[in-house]
Amino acid sequence: MANINTITPPSLSLLRSLRFVFLKLIVSSVFLWRERKKSPPPKMTTDWKSVRLFPIPSVIYLIHNNVQFATLMYVDTSTYQIMGNLKIVTTGILFRLFLKKKLSNLQWMAIVLLAVGTTTSQVKGCGEASCDSLFSAPIQGYMLGILSACLSALAGVYTEFLMKKNNDSLYWQNIQLYTFGSIFNMARLVVDDFRGGFEKGPWWQRLFNGYSITTWLVVLNLGSTGLLVSWLMKYADNIVKVYSTSMAMLLTMVLSVFLFSFKPTLQLFLGIIVCMMSLHMYFAPPHMLVDIPPAIKSDPESLVNVPVDRKTDS
Amino acid sequence: MANINTITPPSLSLLRSLRFVFLKLIVSSVFLWRERKKSPPPKMTTDWKSVRLFPIPSVIYLIHNNVQFATLMYVDTSTYQIMGNLKIVTTGILFRLFLKKKLSNLQWMAIVLLAVGTTTSQVKGCGEASCDSLFSAPIQGYMLGILSACLSALAGVYTEFLMKKNNDSLYWQNIQLYTFGSIFNMARLVVDDFRGGFEKGPWWQRLFNGYSITTWLVVLNLGSTGLLVSWLMKYADNIVKVYSTSMAMLLTMVLSVFLFSFKPTLQLFLGIIVCMMSLHMYFAPPHMLVDIPPAIKSDPESLVNVPVDRKTDS
Repeated sequence: MANINTITPPSLSLLRSLRFVFLKLIVSSVFLWRERKKSPPPKMTTDWKSVRLFPIPSVIYLIHNNVQFATLMYVDTSTYQIMGNLKIVTTGILFRLFLKKKLSNLQWMAIVLLAVGTTTSQVKGCGEASCDSLFSAPIQGYMLGILSACLSALAGVYTEFLMKKNNDSLYWQNIQLYTFGSIFNMARLVVDDFRGGFEKGPWWQRLFNGYSITTWLVVLNLGSTGLLVSWLMKYADNIVKVYSTSMAMLLTMVLSVFLFSFKPTLQLFLGIIVCMMSLHMYFAPPHMLVDIPPAIKSDPESLVNVPVDRKTDS
Repeated sequence: MANINTITPPSLSLLRSLRFVFLKLIVSSVFLWRERKKSPPPKMTTDWKSVRLFPIPSVIYLIHNNVQFATLMYVDTSTYQIMGNLKIVTTGILFRLFLKKKLSNLQWMAIVLLAVGTTTSQVKGCGEASCDSLFSAPIQGYMLGILSACLSALAGVYTEFLMKKNNDSLYWQNIQLYTFGSIFNMARLVVDDFRGGFEKGPWWQRLFNGYSITTWLVVLNLGSTGLLVSWLMKYADNIVKVYSTSMAMLLTMVLSVFLFSFKPTLQLFLGIIVCMMSLHMYFAPPHMLVDIPPAIKSDPESLVNVPVDRKTDS
């Protein structure tokens, strides 16, 4: 059993995520309302066949949340963080399987390297207080960690499918997503309240409890990140998202070195190099990476020569 | 200043390497003698213009040895070991510059990743006694470390040039290399003896001192490694050598986990993945790594179509 007390209790994090969802719902509604005044009006599919697909990400997140909590019963937080990088690889696999996007061998290698690079940067240095107990957790912890990575990837890939399946307005898609999200969230809060016998009062009385300027800034920040992720899912893809979150994490670590005078570690430096290489391997066009043999380049001269070559062959 | 007492004193390591050189000289002579009885006889260039190039690697090693010792005055052994991985990158650079071998961008990235991978596997775990002081050594230490990496790469690349410049017998080339090597080695031992005032007697009396079965096995092992390296330089190249030494180091670490129950670290595991990816990136043929766009594949149909395209262009 690990130090669960360092983890936010689930009902508190539910309240917090409900705040983000409400914020995103309000912002998306405002944008949609403004878009409807323009011509042409935004495309909005209100068909039940389409709408019924939008609760599914919320269901996946609900399961994921519980699996996450179960994982933390078996592994400590740093092992949990390390295992979180598995999500990069599972996202690649589900992206290939469900969205039918073909990746080259080099792109697969890039995805594995991205996971390895982010993990490297998180390896505990030799001066740190708590040691990794990465290879000593019970097997259930690892199994749940893998399941958690798969669920997280599935939610991402499914959201990308939802956002791209038609050219509905992004804000309309967001509203559907967040409406179902908030319903699921509120339902769970009510269940929690009943279980706790309304000791702390119903959830809606606690929604605006303990608000400071920092809390508002965090809500605003995470809320706008959520909206940007929707945008990424519609106009880019899950792999772009995985790269941007990894780069953001590394950038945060580098900034912490400068702003909060964190001691830079060798593993942070090595991890950054591996991630940069991975980025280049994934996104650079093939001809920038390998020398494509001149024989198959179609320059006019070789075109003239080919018939002669073919004659000598036969 | 670092813990120099953990490093072998130079005169002892000179004696040791003289043993290897003698062994390699004897073995190469036997092989050459056997080869001369066959027909066609081995090619042997005895021209002074060719022979005079063979002392140069010994001169480079002599300088390298001194630089190495100077480096250890500024950095500790673990930092020294970490900086040793720079040799991989400098070998790539000198290989390109002096031997005029062209590498693709992907191969350059593979070389950098190999250096990063081997370094990752050597990162000190959080339970270990002595901490890396990697970012706290004086600047001279780093400069000397870089110089050391360049000299080591230069010796390797120059030896490859020597071995490949003509199709002389490998054993004849070895004999020239090792003869000059032993001359330089003996000269330094004589100088050391004079400096020490023959306190421990002349070096040839100490050559077979303190020999056990283990020492003989080590001499035999390192002697045969030396001969295999000559073979690699003649029939493969420096990059192949760099990969094989790195893989051997990782294999040793993995075997230590099983044989001597060393605790496996996360960084060893991550380092191995990075090195494997690097190996594949360097040696796999391009078409196995990237999907070469079908447009530039020269299938007969596109050849027929091209003139039509060109007409429409003009």
